[in-house]
Amino acid sequence: MPGNTIGKSLVLTTYGESHGTQIGGILDGMPSGIEINLDSVQKALDRRRPGQSHLTTERNEEDTVIFHSGLFEGKTTGTPIAFSILNKDHRSEDYGQIKDVFRPSHADFVYEAKYGHRDYRGGGRSSARETACRVVGGALAAQILPNIQVKAWVSAVGPVKLAATAEQLDLSTIDAHPTRCPHQETAKEMETYIEQCRAANDSTGGVITGLATGVPVGLGEPVFDKLQADLAKALMSINAVKGFEIGSGFSSSEMTGSMHNDAINEDFSTATNNAGGIVGGLSNGAPIEVRVAFKPVATIGKNQKTVNKDGESTILAAKGRHDPCVVPRAVPIVEAMMQLVLADHYLRNLKYKA
Amino acid sequence: MPGNTIGKSLVLTTYGESHGTQIGGILDGMPSGIEINLDSVQKALDRRRPGQSHLTTERNEEDTVIFHSGLFEGKTTGTPIAFSILNKDHRSEDYGQIKDVFRPSHADFVYEAKYGHRDYRGGGRSSARETACRVVGGALAAQILPNIQVKAWVSAVGPVKLAATAEQLDLSTIDAHPTRCPHQETAKEMETYIEQCRAANDSTGGVITGLATGVPVGLGEPVFDKLQADLAKALMSINAVKGFEIGSGFSSSEMTGSMHNDAINEDFSTATNNAGGIVGGLSNGAPIEVRVAFKPVATIGKNQKTVNKDGESTILAAKGRHDPCVVPRAVPIVEAMMQLVLADHYLRNLKYKA
Amino acid sequence: MPGNTIGKSLVLTTYGESHGTQIGGILDGMPSGIEINLDSVQKALDRRRPGQSHLTTERNEEDTVIFHSGLFEGKTTGTPIAFSILNKDHRSEDYGQIKDVFRPSHADFVYEAKYGHRDYRGGGRSSARETACRVVGGALAAQILPNIQVKAWVSAVGPVKLAATAEQLDLSTIDAHPTRCPHQETAKEMETYIEQCRAANDSTGGVITGLATGVPVGLGEPVFDKLQADLAKALMSINAVKGFEIGSGFSSSEMTGSMHNDAINEDFSTATNNAGGIVGGLSNGAPIEVRVAFKPVATIGKNQKTVNKDGESTILAAKGRHDPCVVPRAVPIVEAMMQLVLADHYLRNLKYKA
Amino acid sequence: MPGNTIGKSLVLTTYGESHGTQIGGILDGMPSGIEINLDSVQKALDRRRPGQSHLTTERNEEDTVIFHSGLFEGKTTGTPIAFSILNKDHRSEDYGQIKDVFRPSHADFVYEAKYGHRDYRGGGRSSARETACRVVGGALAAQILPNIQVKAWVSAVGPVKLAATAEQLDLSTIDAHPTRCPHQETAKEMETYIEQCRAANDSTGGVITGLATGVPVGLGEPVFDKLQADLAKALMSINAVKGFEIGSGFSSSEMTGSMHNDAINEDFSTATNNAGGIVGGLSNGAPIEVRVAFKPVATIGKNQKTVNKDGESTILAAKGRHDPCVVPRAVPIVEAMMQLVLADHYLRNLKYKA
Repeated sequence: MPGNTIGKSLVLTTYGESHGTQIGGILDGMPSGIEINLDSVQKALDRRRPGQSHLTTERNEEDTVIFHSGLFEGKTTGTPIAFSILNKDHRSEDYGQIKDVFRPSHADFVYEAKYGHRDYRGGGRSSARETACRVVGGALAAQILPNIQVKAWVSAVGPVKLAATAEQLDLSTIDAHPTRCPHQETAKEMETYIEQCRAANDSTGGVITGLATGVPVGLGEPVFDKLQADLAKALMSINAVKGFEIGSGFSSSEMTGSMHNDAINEDFSTATNNAGGIVGGLSNGAPIEVRVAFKPVATIGKNQKTVNKDGESTILAAKGRHDPCVVPRAVPIVEAMMQLVLADHYLRNLKYKA
Repeated sequence: MPGNTIGKSLVLTTYGESHGTQIGGILDGMPSGIEINLDSVQKALDRRRPGQSHLTTERNEEDTVIFHSGLFEGKTTGTPIAFSILNKDHRSEDYGQIKDVFRPSHADFVYEAKYGHRDYRGGGRSSARETACRVVGGALAAQILPNIQVKAWVSAVGPVKLAATAEQLDLSTIDAHPTRCPHQETAKEMETYIEQCRAANDSTGGVITGLATGVPVGLGEPVFDKLQADLAKALMSINAVKGFEIGSGFSSSEMTGSMHNDAINEDFSTATNNAGGIVGGLSNGAPIEVRVAFKPVATIGKNQKTVNKDGESTILAAKGRHDPCVVPRAVPIVEAMMQLVLADHYLRNLKYKA
Repeated sequence: MPGNTIGKSLVLTTYGESHGTQIGGILDGMPSGIEINLDSVQKALDRRRPGQSHLTTERNEEDTVIFHSGLFEGKTTGTPIAFSILNKDHRSEDYGQIKDVFRPSHADFVYEAKYGHRDYRGGGRSSARETACRVVGGALAAQILPNIQVKAWVSAVGPVKLAATAEQLDLSTIDAHPTRCPHQETAKEMETYIEQCRAANDSTGGVITGLATGVPVGLGEPVFDKLQADLAKALMSINAVKGFEIGSGFSSSEMTGSMHNDAINEDFSTATNNAGGIVGGLSNGAPIEVRVAFKPVATIGKNQKTVNKDGESTILAAKGRHDPCVVPRAVPIVEAMMQLVLADHYLRNLKYKA
Repeated sequence: MPGNTIGKSLVLTTYGESHGTQIGGILDGMPSGIEINLDSVQKALDRRRPGQSHLTTERNEEDTVIFHSGLFEGKTTGTPIAFSILNKDHRSEDYGQIKDVFRPSHADFVYEAKYGHRDYRGGGRSSARETACRVVGGALAAQILPNIQVKAWVSAVGPVKLAATAEQLDLSTIDAHPTRCPHQETAKEMETYIEQCRAANDSTGGVITGLATGVPVGLGEPVFDKLQADLAKALMSINAVKGFEIGSGFSSSEMTGSMHNDAINEDFSTATNNAGGIVGGLSNGAPIEVRVAFKPVATIGKNQKTVNKDGESTILAAKGRHDPCVVPRAVPIVEAMMQLVLADHYLRNLKYKA
């Protein structure tokens, strides 16, 4: 049973390897008659591309999405929306060592073991290149949720952590700084830390916070397709993600019930939001707040000890140009996965009438 | 689209409300010819039941699982295995206030909003009662994985945290203490803390660590059904879970690549296991280690301010008997969800031969 | 990947073998708040049971359906509806020869080959006993389709064919004759033919026509889940079915376009209904008319040449009591499968609103 | 819940409208390491294209399939295989009347009713153009079934019927005549009849027989995903199909059990094959034989009475060039759908090993 499809009522299937000619996908289940802003899709994609700032990789690749079906006269027709993104210069990279050497903390070994026949010219299907298709899917999905706003931002880079809560931030400033941290002082500290990592030929991890507001009450399908469960799956499927929290998250384990319980107000809102917007697997109308931990990029500018396909010890040469911190570029990916899950559950929750 | 089914090749569908006559499920996809140890299923269920120790609720309910199909002469037949567990004394509870009052941090309000017609005699479908069916499913699933060992234990209760790593623990002692913490000193501290919470008419959260050893290389189906993504979904679908980590988890966000990368040995094992046993969405043969955060039980022995169905402010009376900490009882549930996911992916990974 | 589940928005999963203690199922996806008439479910089941008339097997088994969840105060709660039906006297039958001999045109050999470990006490899971659960599912599904009427009747038994069209029949008389042919003269000819078959220790096949009226325009999900495709699958999954037609069916292959095209009227209805109520995979508002061919019952009152498990030639002894024609009892099964498919597509077709 | 996906272990999702820029699909679940003969895929597609002979439409469109992923060094990699086919001259057609007039027995009205916003430049998604993607999918699927041969041929055109059975035919001659009837005399009669229909500005239906040999015992997943049920769904989802039979089909309804039962030989083969190769939902090793009825093409060279979008009576002008009989071109589509179902069930049937 293959695994390149996500969603039940809104279904995204993606394809493509980092060194093939193109990547793309099919989004099936978009209701008909929805006006689609194609610019907003391209803009989401632009926020993910490499070479946006001095903080990321220096490659300056433009990703342009092309649509092939499911749209007519600017609106959805209810048929599948297919799209593709060309891989530019996909033949040019010198993949020298990669063919035979298993890079530490990359998928080379496990792909070789599982599939045998592997596209050794790069990460292939395991490359984060595929997440571009998620961004397209999410930006389309967002357009069936006119009242739901999904925003993500960088809340930690290595040891540098954003102390402010969502309410204390001006989320319109997320893109004001290349780190995508909407708190200028912290953003600058993060930038400094990323530059230090680069100078040390190293990389760093980070944390992204995602927030969805305007979510109607009742999204989620217990007992297995609870809304937080599907969000966790979607976000944990992003490359390099190692942890997921909702609301009080891991800190809830240290709290008592009387501290943690969210008292219900007379308008059925809650006085606090330790739940993070989901109770019993269903959205309760409060903002849905999640945090996603990214490990540091595995490709670094240092020599590393590893083995080749034959199990012989070897040294993986330092990579000249590398991305010291991918978290700023992962912000639109986190948003996309949240948008896909919320749109899917929005459609799953349509109300029956006799 | 309903949500009471989990798995693709091994498919568990469950049913039942806390105050109905019974709960149960159907496990479809078990291969034929597997000898099933029914005692081990009942034992797993016994580890979850209330009233096991002075640390949990005082109700002493025995849950007995009955099988209805799919087994013949002690072996699976390849047809669906149906099972049920009676709800004892399901009519006796006085549900007084619950009918009209929305309990804080319970699913009462969101179920009322989503479904309209709600079984108000208790948590209904949102009660953790349903997790008994997960335990049955997991204990069956475990029997198709003879070489995989799944163990979970309590690694934190409130502020009391287990410092030892998995390697430093004797996992055969998990059940030696009612907290299910396999480190006697820490276990006693946890016990003391739980008793304090109970005395304060309060409850506490906690953390469970899950470990799967003997997992073959290659389980997982990128790019969306990565093994860690399906584990995250399965574990985040358990009542009261607010966070999920694998391997280095949230701490990875503070690390550099040179610290975090797991060097590959000549036998393709890794020198460290920051990955937590999964790379690129596929198991790499190292132990799979996850941590799951549970919020404190919402039912407490204190009066709480809330509202009734009409939005009128009211006081929810303190609950006389309550479970100050469910984490020890949740250990078999965590194991079950891991077993279900691993068995599902084991079957999804069967190798094609022409 | 197991196959005991049907439907996407309304999902029926069934279990149970003919010689186990019970059979049953879980219907997930029923909207909440629907008043359920349990009597109508039991009545549908009564129309399927053996021993209803002198035309079927003489065993007089009563099947009583019991519900376990998903219903409260007479209405659906939106949670899964589980039900079971006890197998009475399941231990009493003497299965003598069946254990080791492969009966011609039964599933004994293929089940042995596929599953290895087989419940040899009877048909096991391959017995038509499982269709009782379909009838329960269909009778529940019908209750979310208040404006759709599904009726099926026997339109052929062996060479005896009903000439009248649906419009010419009084469908309230389907149950007036034990053959379930709503045309008294033809019904009597069918009865005579069935009695002849029984007297000859033989069995006969037949055809059932199914009709759904009041179907709204637009049910069906092209291009693969077209309404006729899902109806075909559902009906072809019934034991002993060998053929399926919709509207003009096989006779359409002999027609010209000018004969076959259904002219559209000013109210968008069609002047004729060669389409059988479905165009382009979508219901068009006209009656959906299907025909389903059943092969003769494989169990007969004659000795038959066959082999045992070791491939040795042997004689399968004549069965004393057998059912010479199952088609009258299959009428509620055909109705149930149509109801399940229509209800599933009704829910899949719920309209998006921003 | 959208419907543009078929299969569970081998999953084909397609997209594209007749007047868009391209059509295409994603085939997910192909095992890795399979050598793919791309020529055989293109050849299958060539057998479906318009303009192959004087019997079909005169448009001479070449369809060229392009692959985008999932293949490396001539072999599958286990990742999704994406492909596309350009729509040539998709802008050139004059769709004049079609925009506002509902053509009889076409999907115009039902698509308008279901989707509202419809691509009115032609059939859009309801056009048989989409079946080209099925042919690509099937031709890929066939390559994981080296021992299974799937062949289809035209067995009836209007009243002209092929009397010979599969055993009596030389299936290597299917393509020897443009009708794709492997019996030269009957083929010529069919040709004459098709020419008569064209001369009369009319169209005709027909029947295609499909045969799969070399199928291993045990494919199929009871009770709902029986092999014949999934074949029926797949074949009934092809445009213009109105009926499906397996083995004895509708004629079984006229037979007695003693005539119909297939005696089992000492090697577990059967003396006859009324079953059509499937018993109890599982393949039994005998050839799987199905028959599929196609209605006559709805587009004809005669004026037809119909209505426009406002329900006003109008005349649909005769179409100058039309395809009097699509059945010869549908042969590769029938083969493709059988190949997809068989390959899917082949993968679903992979055997568990501990």
